[in-house]
Amino acid sequence: MSEIVLKPVGFVRNSITEGSYPAGKPPDPVAEPDKYALWRERIRQAKQARNSVSELVIDDKLDGILDGIEEFSHLLVLYWADRIPEERRSTLKVHPMGREDFPLLGIFATRSPVRPNPILATIVRLLERKGNVLKVQGIEAINGSPILDIKPQTDDQYDADQRRIPDWIREVHQAFDEVETDE
Amino acid sequence: MSEIVLKPVGFVRNSITEGSYPAGKPPDPVAEPDKYALWRERIRQAKQARNSVSELVIDDKLDGILDGIEEFSHLLVLYWADRIPEERRSTLKVHPMGREDFPLLGIFATRSPVRPNPILATIVRLLERKGNVLKVQGIEAINGSPILDIKPQTDDQYDADQRRIPDWIREVHQAFDEVETDE
Repeated sequence: MSEIVLKPVGFVRNSITEGSYPAGKPPDPVAEPDKYALWRERIRQAKQARNSVSELVIDDKLDGILDGIEEFSHLLVLYWADRIPEERRSTLKVHPMGREDFPLLGIFATRSPVRPNPILATIVRLLERKGNVLKVQGIEAINGSPILDIKPQTDDQYDADQRRIPDWIREVHQAFDEVETDE
Repeated sequence: MSEIVLKPVGFVRNSITEGSYPAGKPPDPVAEPDKYALWRERIRQAKQARNSVSELVIDDKLDGILDGIEEFSHLLVLYWADRIPEERRSTLKVHPMGREDFPLLGIFATRSPVRPNPILATIVRLLERKGNVLKVQGIEAINGSPILDIKPQTDDQYDADQRRIPDWIREVHQAFDEVETDE
């Protein structure tokens, strides 16, 4: 199958300088209080990164390509995980979130940024448009990440409550829900 | 910004040979009954294409990359609209669905397949996995389209009922909801 060549349409501007460190399996709060505190702190940082505000700076040669986008509250952003070293793109299996207590899974069964084509997809809330710059909340991209595409987020044609997900995802969500952030 | 090179991870196999033709503005059923019937037929065909079953054939060199995917009911598929001629990738504005009664909008405010990087994103229902082939429902890709990535679809972190969308999208959804299909 032949190669496909993309040209970034812009880049992400924010204060995130590295990917959030996987927090691992939650330690026992009674037996290992220090480790547990560190674990909570990592989750808290990951949550803050996920809720932080970024700017999507679109190439100003693409004049008019954002017109009408203000009418949407949410957007789907496709961006390129350019900090993933090329040799890691051949990884086929991982433990999700780096947790060895989770099963070893194929990359396509995870949202790992390490993938054959590291295109990351995130739904963001659109806060403001100023010319060729979109102020958005909810993208955990590293500062400078190339943007590939932006699409309006309309409805998911499937009901979320009919969705089936594995237990390991439920555990990840639970850990996130438990830890409070300042925001 | 420097170019990004992707390698397809597989391709879509189905019976769809061309993109669905935009149905346009609904004609008046009383004044123009023939045109109205044709319009309904186009919507019906587009709906059937959207609900049809496809196979996602993953490169068998990527052995194990799908392991664990059976635990998800829904997947996000990123694929490449390889039938869009390269020169159309510089289009900046369109009337959504080819309807001139809709406003002229920037490409990023639409889901038009014509975009600077024509990566299309669709949520599908996973029906079955057989080795390196996923049988899925809900992707309107043309037969042979290169697949770029597959991700599990978990929750949308935002409530769909808090989403704000423009009136033209509501009109498109309404037209689709009105027309019945055989399925």
